[in-house]
Amino acid sequence: MQNFVLGIDIGGTNTVFGLVDARGEILANGSIKTSKHADISPYIDELASALNPLIKQVGSVAAIRGIGVGAPNANYFTGCIEFAANLPWKGTIPLAKLICDATGGIPVAVTNDANAAAIGEMTYGSAKGLKDFIMITLGTGVGSGIVVGGQLVYGHDGFAGELGHVIVRRDKGRPCGCGRHGCLETYTSATGVARTAREYLLNLPNPSPLRALDPNTISSKDVYDAAMAGDPLAREIFLFTGTILGEAFADFIAFTSPEAIVLFGGLTKAGKLIIDPIKDAMERNVLKVFAGKTQLLLSQLKESDAAVLGASALGWEAK
Amino acid sequence: MQNFVLGIDIGGTNTVFGLVDARGEILANGSIKTSKHADISPYIDELASALNPLIKQVGSVAAIRGIGVGAPNANYFTGCIEFAANLPWKGTIPLAKLICDATGGIPVAVTNDANAAAIGEMTYGSAKGLKDFIMITLGTGVGSGIVVGGQLVYGHDGFAGELGHVIVRRDKGRPCGCGRHGCLETYTSATGVARTAREYLLNLPNPSPLRALDPNTISSKDVYDAAMAGDPLAREIFLFTGTILGEAFADFIAFTSPEAIVLFGGLTKAGKLIIDPIKDAMERNVLKVFAGKTQLLLSQLKESDAAVLGASALGWEAK
Repeated sequence: MQNFVLGIDIGGTNTVFGLVDARGEILANGSIKTSKHADISPYIDELASALNPLIKQVGSVAAIRGIGVGAPNANYFTGCIEFAANLPWKGTIPLAKLICDATGGIPVAVTNDANAAAIGEMTYGSAKGLKDFIMITLGTGVGSGIVVGGQLVYGHDGFAGELGHVIVRRDKGRPCGCGRHGCLETYTSATGVARTAREYLLNLPNPSPLRALDPNTISSKDVYDAAMAGDPLAREIFLFTGTILGEAFADFIAFTSPEAIVLFGGLTKAGKLIIDPIKDAMERNVLKVFAGKTQLLLSQLKESDAAVLGASALGWEAK
Repeated sequence: MQNFVLGIDIGGTNTVFGLVDARGEILANGSIKTSKHADISPYIDELASALNPLIKQVGSVAAIRGIGVGAPNANYFTGCIEFAANLPWKGTIPLAKLICDATGGIPVAVTNDANAAAIGEMTYGSAKGLKDFIMITLGTGVGSGIVVGGQLVYGHDGFAGELGHVIVRRDKGRPCGCGRHGCLETYTSATGVARTAREYLLNLPNPSPLRALDPNTISSKDVYDAAMAGDPLAREIFLFTGTILGEAFADFIAFTSPEAIVLFGGLTKAGKLIIDPIKDAMERNVLKVFAGKTQLLLSQLKESDAAVLGASALGWEAK
């Protein structure tokens, strides 16, 4: 009986992994340092050794249905990581094959983190039973995973769903790490909120406890704390952020008409401060035929578990 | 053997229909007036009578695989037309059921015209063999049909793919028939091109043969004629239109990463005048990972046949 999957989330600093059952319980987990391996081969060796006790725990590889991997720039179709700027390995890395070979032939599927989050949410979280939804991750950047008819949208090349890089301010938009200007994530990621705070403090005369902080290290958490303490300027920053998100969501709805948009990531901790302006702007801007139809949901996966759970969910469909 | 389908395209003025074989040949066709029937019931009677000779031509209803219908606001899931402003019938009309009953039980599927065009293009046209593409129709409005993994995207409610109503100018955008401002179709439909011409003539000092025309009746065809005669202002209008389309397409690519965007409709007759600026703006604005990957294709369906062919293609999958 193949009642278990392994989920692996590869970040630039750490790789976390876990053994997961069909109900989404993490039975065992662990982590290794991604950053310490400049070469892929010793990294894979260390990863395989670290996975071994988890596999032994359920008997043998025969009990594992598959391994799902979430990693930056990971391509579902090719099984490769392709030119990931935040990982130590250069060029194209045949990740799925390397992990499969190193674990005695367990089927492996890879995709990027936001897609993994969408599959995790569909398998174990808020999107259980939903056939059409969009996952939006609001972290350092803005990621997305689009589900249509119960299937994740990979596009013809495996890279679909880059909604953090939809242009929301066409002229004089903020410069983005992607080399362009005005991308959604320059405004609505945690980093984007901090940028907004710096802009507001520079351009507006309003008093704010945020003025006591070093503008260069101000974080979205600082803005949240100030807003919760009643600072009108900090609230205005969340209103601005939520409005841009809601406007963008209204356009996303015109695309795939999802039943829900599921939000995940640090910024969602701001709760109503960010959710209410998103909802308002979304409903104010959406085409009439879609009005009131798309729910805004928060992820139900614990943040510490979500990366592993999301990746592991992909393991159920690995071939 | 069910080797034939019927395609019906319902417009506000005319309903056109045809008998189509598996290679996309229209073996017989005809039309009736939509606008003369304020009530749906006599309309269905006349339509059924008009279809009868086409059915007889291939023997009986047993030879017909299905009927596909393209109509404004037609919902694939419910089989109904819902509150279509341009049709004479009010409220919700159970179109699929009515046509099925009136034709002795032939399975009927309905969808909107742009979705029908996408299915037509995939079945008989430029998109044959493509699994991931976006159909964009540039007519009086801008319509779209999105195909992901070989399946048309209907969304959870049947109304997905309203890309003509994505907002491309958020502040001070042109008013749209949908009640909002700045929709893609207010700039890039045939009507949008005429609006641009009126704006340019009003706000710019440049001489142009277009100044000899009544601004209220100026059409995209007039702009095309002037551009072909070498008028720089008219060329500028196409450059403006194509640029907005290309910018929007770059965002669409970030959504579903299609292999191609297929263009259909009157405006595509402008050829390189409109295609070149679209390509330029699309490649200049697209996220790097997608650069050079998405083809821009023109519909291969004859404009006079396309509506019937598109609708008929849906007939093959009617249940």
